[in-house]
This record gives sequence, structure tokens and C-alpha cells, in this order.
Amino acid sequence: MKVLVINCGSSSIKYQLFDMPQKELLAKGLVEKVGEGKSILTHQHKGREFRSEVPVSNHEEGMKLIMKTLTDKETGAISDISRIDAVGHRVVHGGENFSGSVKITKDVLETIEEYADLAPLHNPPNLAGIMAISSILPDVVQAAAFDTAFHQTIPQKAYMYAIPRDLYEKFGIRRYGFHGTSHRFVARRAVTLMGKAKKETNVITCHLGNGCSITAVKNGKSVDTSMGLTPLEGLVMGTRSGDIDPAIIFYLAERQGMSTRDINTILNKKSGLLGVSGVSNDMRNVLEEASKGNDKAELAIEIFCYRIKKYIGAYTAVLGHVDAVAFTGGIGENSALIREKVLDGLECLGIRLDTNRNCDDSKAERLISSRDSKVDVFVIPTDEEGRIAYDTHKIASGKGEAG
Amino acid sequence: MKVLVINCGSSSIKYQLFDMPQKELLAKGLVEKVGEGKSILTHQHKGREFRSEVPVSNHEEGMKLIMKTLTDKETGAISDISRIDAVGHRVVHGGENFSGSVKITKDVLETIEEYADLAPLHNPPNLAGIMAISSILPDVVQAAAFDTAFHQTIPQKAYMYAIPRDLYEKFGIRRYGFHGTSHRFVARRAVTLMGKAKKETNVITCHLGNGCSITAVKNGKSVDTSMGLTPLEGLVMGTRSGDIDPAIIFYLAERQGMSTRDINTILNKKSGLLGVSGVSNDMRNVLEEASKGNDKAELAIEIFCYRIKKYIGAYTAVLGHVDAVAFTGGIGENSALIREKVLDGLECLGIRLDTNRNCDDSKAERLISSRDSKVDVFVIPTDEEGRIAYDTHKIASGKGEAG
Repeated sequence: MKVLVINCGSSSIKYQLFDMPQKELLAKGLVEKVGEGKSILTHQHKGREFRSEVPVSNHEEGMKLIMKTLTDKETGAISDISRIDAVGHRVVHGGENFSGSVKITKDVLETIEEYADLAPLHNPPNLAGIMAISSILPDVVQAAAFDTAFHQTIPQKAYMYAIPRDLYEKFGIRRYGFHGTSHRFVARRAVTLMGKAKKETNVITCHLGNGCSITAVKNGKSVDTSMGLTPLEGLVMGTRSGDIDPAIIFYLAERQGMSTRDINTILNKKSGLLGVSGVSNDMRNVLEEASKGNDKAELAIEIFCYRIKKYIGAYTAVLGHVDAVAFTGGIGENSALIREKVLDGLECLGIRLDTNRNCDDSKAERLISSRDSKVDVFVIPTDEEGRIAYDTHKIASGKGEAG
Repeated sequence: MKVLVINCGSSSIKYQLFDMPQKELLAKGLVEKVGEGKSILTHQHKGREFRSEVPVSNHEEGMKLIMKTLTDKETGAISDISRIDAVGHRVVHGGENFSGSVKITKDVLETIEEYADLAPLHNPPNLAGIMAISSILPDVVQAAAFDTAFHQTIPQKAYMYAIPRDLYEKFGIRRYGFHGTSHRFVARRAVTLMGKAKKETNVITCHLGNGCSITAVKNGKSVDTSMGLTPLEGLVMGTRSGDIDPAIIFYLAERQGMSTRDINTILNKKSGLLGVSGVSNDMRNVLEEASKGNDKAELAIEIFCYRIKKYIGAYTAVLGHVDAVAFTGGIGENSALIREKVLDGLECLGIRLDTNRNCDDSKAERLISSRDSKVDVFVIPTDEEGRIAYDTHKIASGKGEAG
């Protein structure tokens, strides 16, 4: 079964075509700068990369370009778009309605639309992607995998903010959490690697990419996570501040006369690694600058790691005991230095790194804690698209909800 | 030496008159509703309480009323106001300028005024109190004890937010922390009670009153604390939300059209225990309601305790090892149930409560952990006024800065 996995951003479409259930990646690519005049398509197939510039004015045009590329004689992986059996979409916000991936129906569409108010940057492009596929491939099964779904098991004491209750009842303001597909996958892999039963194993999963979040997973279920109503809360990220005193916003608005829109932009787009280092939102560049003696870059790294360390402590208290800590995402998988700084001094929590294993450059899943560490520490490359393909295949095969 | 300790709020003045250095409390009281028409004076002297209603239109009038009461034949503790040798003021925000209590000079006054922008509800009344004393007792030594001073040892990685650096450089936006006088006192008492050297002892101090904060104290120095730029950040409090996703503010402003002023009021005055329980900002009432089966009151307690538990975990990770956890403040000193819920399941951090000791109703300092607990747990009644009197006495005696 050919499954196309789609991840639509406001001006981009990522896609991967899998042959399922063997999860063979047939092709993948990215359309950037959708609606911005000069769009860029990058496409990979059989080890070759193709790149072209084509103006793409909206998501439907972008999707048509993808279909053309997937069926092209030179770049294509399939002879005709009718060979696509199912399409799985990453959808950011599923609110309280979905605790697993689902087949997209009219009701599901309405719910995704409803939550656009809480995820104005994410759900509308996700919807646009779904509508584009409906128009191009009207008979194909479509599935939605929600970033929020895995976190629906978080208990009330952890998802309710200490604000007037009617803000939850009227507007749905609560912690939802994101990166759920990644946290779920990584937590399960960690349990498998330990050879333990999911029902009696606790894992802290650190997804450190351009967005960063950390989750406490108790017996296979998410019980707390650092992102909240939106992906702004929690850890320091590429351009997002993570946790701050909310009164900073009042200070900037009331004392400095800034608009909430501008403050929103500062905290979401100009903060995090970029804001502190003044160099880049990309940890690789920040590490590079720090190694040259740039104090601000060094501080950005220190703050980044310090916050993760605090969350690992907090989630240890939440879980009562921790069997494993797992790192994933671009930074989590690739930066031995960051992992070392995060875990430095955590012997009090039973965590001890093996320096050699940590510095091993292999891209594979691996244990990096020392033999005498009470808590196992893993590096586990995430596989969000693979999981969405898996769920979509399951749903399209008529095996019901996945998750 | 007679030392008067003053704590001015926007519409209240608390006062305590001590005979120093023996720290004998001669009289104490409170003027409420300053500037609100019908002001109320409550005064205690030699075990008797006096109460009267007198209109007080500003802090200077309030201070004159206090002087009259302190020297009155019936209620007074001194024959004449000239008997007051020194006055110590609690000042909320000292910014980065003060790491201990200081004698108030023109420069100090200017700095307090400068930080009024960051503490608009607190520093102006603190200043009004100082000016009132200057006018009534022009020759008396005045000292300022800052809520922020103890936290000036917090390292950069913990006090810098991950926001653009110019917001720190231009506006001073960083973590300052508050309740410093209380955290300092309680941490030192814990070290004394353990019979250990301050320089090799780590303590987590939980100040749980109407305002709540928690501090990681490493070798006698504050290295992190939960309140930030303002007292809004961190733990759940009587009416304050503590930590939230900052994007909640953007959602309410941009999607619901609320003003930042109204949102500010909601998060500072209508949230916390009050907002979640819908019952009261006073933990005693919330506990009472919960015991009658009120679900919302129960949830408020659960969230309150869960957040403290997370911070204890986070600060354990920060400190590397913890010798003691100490509870203080109205809730911290008096509620065995809250302490039990906070520490429940923290055996993983070496914390084990002794149920009998925890439930002991005595008001005294005491150890409440079990004999096999690796971390000592203490209840230590705070003594902010006593500490301000101590510092003021030291400064007035010409022994320089205190802290």
C-alpha cells in the first residue's frame, strides 16, 4: 500500500511517500515559500536530489506540483497518482477530541477547523492540505495524526492552569502539549530497547529540534509535557522563549507601549537561541560561535541546557521513579555536548553518562549511559513521518483508530 | 535600641516595634484601607488588641496615626516618638543594585524610585512610607531590606530569560525573585538546625503564604527562585496564576479582544487558588470546602501541590544534592495536609515524611522527616520583620551593610 505523508506549514509542504507495511521510503521532498512568488521544490528519489523553482500560489497548487513530481518520468516513484492508496496528514491541534490518529471525515474536519482559533498558525494550513488532497484525489482515504493526541492522558492537575475556570470552559484554555507523535514513538522505542513491559516503565523523552519539548511518560502514557496551550511554553527553542514570567508581556505592553502582536512576534520568532545568542536559531551555528569564544552564544547554550535539566528534575518528581531518559530531534540526536551539559550533575537522580558512548557519532539508536547508571539514557532518532504512515496504513486497512 | 519595622502596601501599613538587639516585640499593628475613606487600625500591645476606624487619606497620615498609637497612654509602648532610634522598611524591588540591606540615602531613594517601573504596585508605597518617616522623624536612621537582595547571587543562566538580549539591557528584564528576607532566614535556620556548615549545605526553601515562592539555596546562596521579573511567576498563589503558557495572554488579547490591563488583573487578582476553586484565595477556606467534597476546591489544592512538587524536583537537579527542604509561610507552617501532598512520592529524591511529626500542631521550628529520610524536612516559622529589625539595628549601630 502506497501511503503519502503530508505536513503542511503556513508556507511549506513536506511530503514522504512510503510503501507500507514494510515502510519503504519511495520519495520525499519539500515545497517552500508557498504563496511567496518564487517557490522552491526539493525532491529526493533513489538517492538523487532534484531542485527547482516554480511559483506556487497556494497549498492546492503545491500539492499538484508534488503529484506531478511523484509521477514524472525522471523524478517519479509511481506511474500515476491513482497508485496512492492513502494520505496521512500531520495535524497540530486536535484539542480534547482525539487521543489517537483517525480517518478524516466531515466531523473531523469541523473539529480541526474549530481548533484553528487555538492554533491559528498551524491548523489552517493543515486543513488546506487536506482540502487539496480531497480535490486532487477525491476517493483516497485520508487520516489525521495529531500532535496533541498522545498527551490526552495528562491528568487534570497537570493540564489545568491556575486561572479562572471559565477560561477553560469557554475557550478551552489548558495544556495540550505537542510533538506527541515523536514522544510516543521515542518512549515506546526506549521501552523496547530496555526489554521491559510498557506498563511498568517510566521514560522522560526530550524532543530537541527547532521546536523543543519534554514529556513525562508513565507506563506508556504521557502524564505531563512542557508545551502548553501553544508550542511557546516550556523549553528554550530556536526562536521561542519557552517559560517566562507572563508579566513581562504586561510590562512591555503597559510600560513600553508595545502591541501584543509585536510582543507575540518577539517571543515566538526572535527569542530562544536566536534572541540570546544574537547569532542564529540553529544550535549548530550557536555551538560553532560559542567554540570561538562568543559569550552570548555560550550563554544561550547554558540557558538551553539548564532549562532541560530542571524539567528532568521536575518530571522525576512527577514520575516517582525514572527508568530512562531519551533524546531525540535534530539537537537531541546529534549534539553530544548538549546531552552532556544537560545531564551533568544529575547523579543525584541516578543518571550517569558514558562519555565515549555519548560521543559516538553513529546515527543509530543507542544507549549512552554508563553501566552503573540507575537510569538508562538513550539517543533515539525520531520517526514522525514513519509513525504517521503506520497509523494511516492501519486506518486505511480498516483496522480502526490508531495511536 | 528601639527599631520600628514598616511594610507599606498600596493601601496598608504594617508595623512592628522591637527592642533590639534582644528582639523583644513591644507592639505591632496594621492600618488598612489607606486612602479609601474608612481606614481601620488594628494594634496589639501587651497581649491586648485595639481596633479603631479613622479616615486616613495617605501613607503620611497613616504613619502619624501609628506614631500617635505607639505613644498613646493606653495603647502606647513608648513615651515619645523620639524614643524610636531607627526605622527599617521592607522594600520590594532593589533590582541589581542591592545584595543586602542598606542605610537609606538619597542615592538609595533614587534607585528605589527607578525600579518603581518594574514594581509599580510595590515600590511607590514603599517610598511613600520612607518619605513619611523622613517628614515625621527627620533625624532617625532608616534602612531598607529588599525582597530581591538575597537572590542577587543567582547565576546568569538562571536569571536570564531566553528573550532578545536588549530587553535585559534596555529595560532590566530578568529574574529578580522576591521573598528574599524569608528564604534567607529559613535557609540559615535549617542549616543551624542540622548543625552543619553553611558553606557545604544545600536547602530548598518553600515560602507558602498568600504569595508563594520556592528557592534553591546552595551553600548559603540563592541560586534559583520561582518568582521572576515580578511576583507573578512560579508557584500557584492565593490569587496569582504562577507559571502559564505566555501565549494565553496573546490568545485572550488577540482572539477574545481583552485588554492587557484586564488580563493582568485576571492573572494577578482572580487566578490561583481563587480562580480554580471559585471559593477563596485563602487556603484554609479551600481546604475546608474540599473536605466537604467540593471538586473545584480539591483541584485547586491538587494543582497547588503538584507545582511545588515539580519545583522541588527541578531544584534537586539544579543543586545536585539536597540536605534539607524547609516549609514556611502561613500555609507552609500550618498545613500538614499540603506538606504531605507536596512530598508524597518523592522517595526518589530521598525525601520521606514522618506522618506523626508532620501532623504535630506545634507552632515551633521542627524536623518532620523520618529518621531514614536522606533529606531533612523542616517546618520553620518565618521571621521577616525580625530579620529587618536585625539588619536595621546592625546598620544603625554603624556596623555597615547587613544581609
